[in-house]
Amino acid sequence: MTQNTADTLSKTPLTLLGLGAMGAALAGSWLAAGHPLTVWNRTAARSGALAARGAAVAATAAEAVAANRLVVVCLLDDASVEEALAGADLTGKDVVNLVTSTPGTARARAALVTARGARYLDGGIMAVPPMIGVPQAGPYVFYSGSRELFEEHGATLAAPAGTRYVGEDASFAALHDVALLSAMYGMFAGVAHAFALVRDESVDPRALAPLLSSWLVAMTGSVEATAGRLASGDYTGDVVSDLAMQVAGVPTFLRTAEERGVSTELLSPYFELMQRRLAADPARHGGEDLTGVIDLLRV
Amino acid sequence: MTQNTADTLSKTPLTLLGLGAMGAALAGSWLAAGHPLTVWNRTAARSGALAARGAAVAATAAEAVAANRLVVVCLLDDASVEEALAGADLTGKDVVNLVTSTPGTARARAALVTARGARYLDGGIMAVPPMIGVPQAGPYVFYSGSRELFEEHGATLAAPAGTRYVGEDASFAALHDVALLSAMYGMFAGVAHAFALVRDESVDPRALAPLLSSWLVAMTGSVEATAGRLASGDYTGDVVSDLAMQVAGVPTFLRTAEERGVSTELLSPYFELMQRRLAADPARHGGEDLTGVIDLLRV
Repeated sequence: MTQNTADTLSKTPLTLLGLGAMGAALAGSWLAAGHPLTVWNRTAARSGALAARGAAVAATAAEAVAANRLVVVCLLDDASVEEALAGADLTGKDVVNLVTSTPGTARARAALVTARGARYLDGGIMAVPPMIGVPQAGPYVFYSGSRELFEEHGATLAAPAGTRYVGEDASFAALHDVALLSAMYGMFAGVAHAFALVRDESVDPRALAPLLSSWLVAMTGSVEATAGRLASGDYTGDVVSDLAMQVAGVPTFLRTAEERGVSTELLSPYFELMQRRLAADPARHGGEDLTGVIDLLRV
Repeated sequence: MTQNTADTLSKTPLTLLGLGAMGAALAGSWLAAGHPLTVWNRTAARSGALAARGAAVAATAAEAVAANRLVVVCLLDDASVEEALAGADLTGKDVVNLVTSTPGTARARAALVTARGARYLDGGIMAVPPMIGVPQAGPYVFYSGSRELFEEHGATLAAPAGTRYVGEDASFAALHDVALLSAMYGMFAGVAHAFALVRDESVDPRALAPLLSSWLVAMTGSVEATAGRLASGDYTGDVVSDLAMQVAGVPTFLRTAEERGVSTELLSPYFELMQRRLAADPARHGGEDLTGVIDLLRV
């Protein structure tokens, strides 16, 4: 079934459920690192190439689960996970779920899986498939849940991508994953607005790009400052551009968008929260930085 | 009036209108570099300290303008600029405006100032006052308008902060300034959402911060790719996570926010544009990256 070398004998055998783009990349990476690997996929599409590289191909998810103690799940969505695990005996298994879900779903799944006699670890992959197995691309996975499972299998899990264990609460990996990706979409929204502004002017977007990205990189310095303010509850120390000044600048951003025929829909909600924070108590909040906006996001 | 050394004699004398936090920082930087400097401020608040350092203090804006050929304007807003320049003779002057305004206002001011016999350069400062005169902090100013003025006074303008000349159209400095700051506010919105998600969980925001900022730094790599797509008009080449896949992931972001009691108002507009782009022609747009969202921002 797999190549039988000293290398594979010393490496933990594992099972992988799901061979989509991400699953296939993970599988290739474990095979390259010499792990005996059993795979299963709902359709047999990608199994052939992996079998040729030494993977054992299971006929059913239950059979794949039975083959190894360590079972990594990388299926399409929550429904596929439920379906795949439904008929399997999870007693004594170490189940690692890499399907992106909400923190609440991760927590619920941890409860179900552990109730069936397994240890559970949830993962949030901070990478796209081409980055898997390419350490210089910086791929990593957030893990949370069973610390014992993570400590026992950390080296195996580290073969395809770096690992960051963020806590025993199984929901934390998903929470970190969603938090980082949410911030990214915010940045993408700002970048979209910026490019829209210069469009149809004789500004080459490729000339704007390095200015834009180095500016954003410089401004990520504020993330740490914001975290410090949230931790201390003091939003006013060492403030350079205070909320009152920044709110005063808002009309320039809105008028510029209007002049350039660009919708303000991506930026207005943030500006409105800035204005709302200031208006709530100008004397008290005017000297803060922008951290107070976060207080207004609670529903 | 100013110290009379070999150093100051070789440096271009100039006038600065406006001594707010930014104006005062600029003034200090020019004095430190040995430029004979004449200052004016509507209130005399900061003039004293600068006079003690060798600046000449003019009684009126018109008198300050008369003192030197190079006149830098760093007042509070557009109205203050109009008022300050109203009574001055601009014939033969080199006027550099650093007051943030919309591109349209910058263009209109360039027309007015040049009609009064001056050359005009508009500037957009990408720095806060504490960064001025501190090259390692990376401060710089976008300039656009008269190329001759910029070439003649580039060295003087470079004393407080780096210079980036972006074109003869006087509106371009403001356009670049607003574009970069708009993108920054988008990023801030995303960061606010991310911190709101982890709040009240036992996730220390100071532990999340370095993960968040290094993730955002990594994701700025997409800015250059987006620029290339805008320039070529091809949104489908080398796409790793396509629009169809990303739209499929949107419910996870919205549900996570709901679970955590966080408003989705900062992210929903971007997600809605993603969904709108896909829905317009799933077969055609599903394989694109997110660049198509920019097409939808045109009003």
